[in-house]
Amino acid sequence: MPSKATLQFVRSLHQKKNRQQENLFLVEGAKSVQEVLASSFRVEMLLGTSQFLADHAGLIQQQRCRLDPATPDELTRMGTLESNNAAIAVVHMRPNTLPALPPNAWTLVLDDIRDPGNLGTILRIADWYGIDTILCSATTAEVYNPKVISASKGSFTRVHWWYGDLEPVLKTATQPVFGTFLEGDDVHQAGFGTSGGLLVMGNEANGISPAIEALVTRRITIPRYGQAESLNVGIATAVILDNVRRTPPPPAPSLVRRGQGGVIT
Amino acid sequence: MPSKATLQFVRSLHQKKNRQQENLFLVEGAKSVQEVLASSFRVEMLLGTSQFLADHAGLIQQQRCRLDPATPDELTRMGTLESNNAAIAVVHMRPNTLPALPPNAWTLVLDDIRDPGNLGTILRIADWYGIDTILCSATTAEVYNPKVISASKGSFTRVHWWYGDLEPVLKTATQPVFGTFLEGDDVHQAGFGTSGGLLVMGNEANGISPAIEALVTRRITIPRYGQAESLNVGIATAVILDNVRRTPPPPAPSLVRRGQGGVIT
Repeated sequence: MPSKATLQFVRSLHQKKNRQQENLFLVEGAKSVQEVLASSFRVEMLLGTSQFLADHAGLIQQQRCRLDPATPDELTRMGTLESNNAAIAVVHMRPNTLPALPPNAWTLVLDDIRDPGNLGTILRIADWYGIDTILCSATTAEVYNPKVISASKGSFTRVHWWYGDLEPVLKTATQPVFGTFLEGDDVHQAGFGTSGGLLVMGNEANGISPAIEALVTRRITIPRYGQAESLNVGIATAVILDNVRRTPPPPAPSLVRRGQGGVIT
Repeated sequence: MPSKATLQFVRSLHQKKNRQQENLFLVEGAKSVQEVLASSFRVEMLLGTSQFLADHAGLIQQQRCRLDPATPDELTRMGTLESNNAAIAVVHMRPNTLPALPPNAWTLVLDDIRDPGNLGTILRIADWYGIDTILCSATTAEVYNPKVISASKGSFTRVHWWYGDLEPVLKTATQPVFGTFLEGDDVHQAGFGTSGGLLVMGNEANGISPAIEALVTRRITIPRYGQAESLNVGIATAVILDNVRRTPPPPAPSLVRRGQGGVIT
C-alpha cells in the first residue's frame, strides 16, 4: 500500500514544474504502462494492482524498479485518469538532444501546437506512419503532460522528440521543408518524392508563424470538397502523412512499338 | 438580463432527457451561434452580449427569435463551455427522417460511435469532404450533445443525419458498402469509383459490429508504416475520405506510334 508520502509525490507530478524539477513523469493505465515497461525508458517506480504486477512480472523484472502494490481506488486518487484499475509508472525523462535528421526520411516539425490532446494524437499518427522524429518549438505543449502521454496510446515510447528553437534547425536543413497553408500545392498532386523532408504543422488558431513560414520551401494544401472552414491539426497531419506515404504511382506503361511485332521496349 | 427561470431552463438542456422532451438543444460560442443563425435551423431563443446582438442584428432579424441580453459571466454560468463571452442559442431539433440516399454520392454510416468529441470531429470532416448525409446507429452518441455541437465547429449546420436501425438501410442499399477492417484492400489502391457508396465507421473499441459487417461488400484498410496499434476513428474517417475524393489517377499516357512521324493516337 503506497505511503502518504508516495501518494503526495505521485500527485506532485501532475504539475509541470515538479516534473521538470524531478526529471520524472507519469504513465497511467494498463496499456501505456505495459508499453513503457517494455520500452527503453527507465521506470523509477511502479504502482500497480497485485493482478497487474503478477501479469507483467517478466517486464517488471527487466526494469528493476521500485514496486508498490496499490488498489484501483488508490491509483485513481493518485493519478489523472477518471479511473485506473491497473497501474501508474513514474518514469525518467529522456535528455533533450537534437537528433541528426535522418536522410531519406520524414521529420515532423511542430510550430506551437498548444493542445495536449492534439500533441498526443500527433505522436500516435507519427507512429502509425513510421515517423521517428518530431521537432517541437519551445512553445509547443509539454510532451510529458499526462494528457499527451495518455492520448498517444503508447506511441510516446516509439517516437523521439526534441524541444527548442526551430529556426536554426530549418535554416540548415538539407531536405525540402513542407508547410501547410490555405493556398499551396494540392497534396493529391504535389509529389513528395522519395528523399524525405520536413513537414511543419502550425498552431491550432494561427497556423505557421511568420518566422517559420519564411523557411518553408514547399507550400502545400489539403483540398476541400465541402464548406468546413478548417481541419483539426491532428486530422491534417494524418491526411498529409497518408499522402506522403502513398506508393508513388506505378511507372507509365512501357511504350509499345506497334507494327514491330509487339516488341515492348 | 436572463431571469432565474431562463437560466434554469437553459441549464436543463445540458441533459439529454430534457433536450428530448423539449425538442430543443444548445449552440454556444460566437462562431457556432453565428453559423446556426445563418442556417436553416430555427432558433427559439438567443442569449448574447449586447455587442454580439448588435454585431449580428441582420441575422437575428431573419430568425425572429426571442432575445435576451446576457453578460459573459451569465453565459458561462448557463452554458457548458469553460468560458463564453458571446452567445448561446436555444435551437429546435430537426425531425429524424431517413433521407433518400443520393445516387453517385457518398454517405457516412456510423456504427456505434460513442465519444461525443469523435462524433463532432466526424461532422466537421464530413463537411470538409463534401459529405451531406450521415446515418447513425441508435447507439451512436447523441448529435445534440453540446460537446458534439461544439466539436463540429459549425459543421452541424451543413450535414444531415439520421438515427435508427442501420441493418434494413444497408440491406436495401444499391451502392457498395465500404467498411474499414484490419485486413482489407489498401485504400491507396482500392479504387473507390465514381458512383459513390456508403462508408461504415465502427465503434472506437470494437470496430464494426458483426451484424453490420455481414452487410459490408468492400473491406478496406488504411496501410500502416510504423507500429501504432490503431488510429482514432475521426483520423481514420478523414484519411479514407481523402482517398475517396482524390482525383482518379490520370489515364495512362497515350501510346505513341513511333516510326510513324510521332503521331499521337
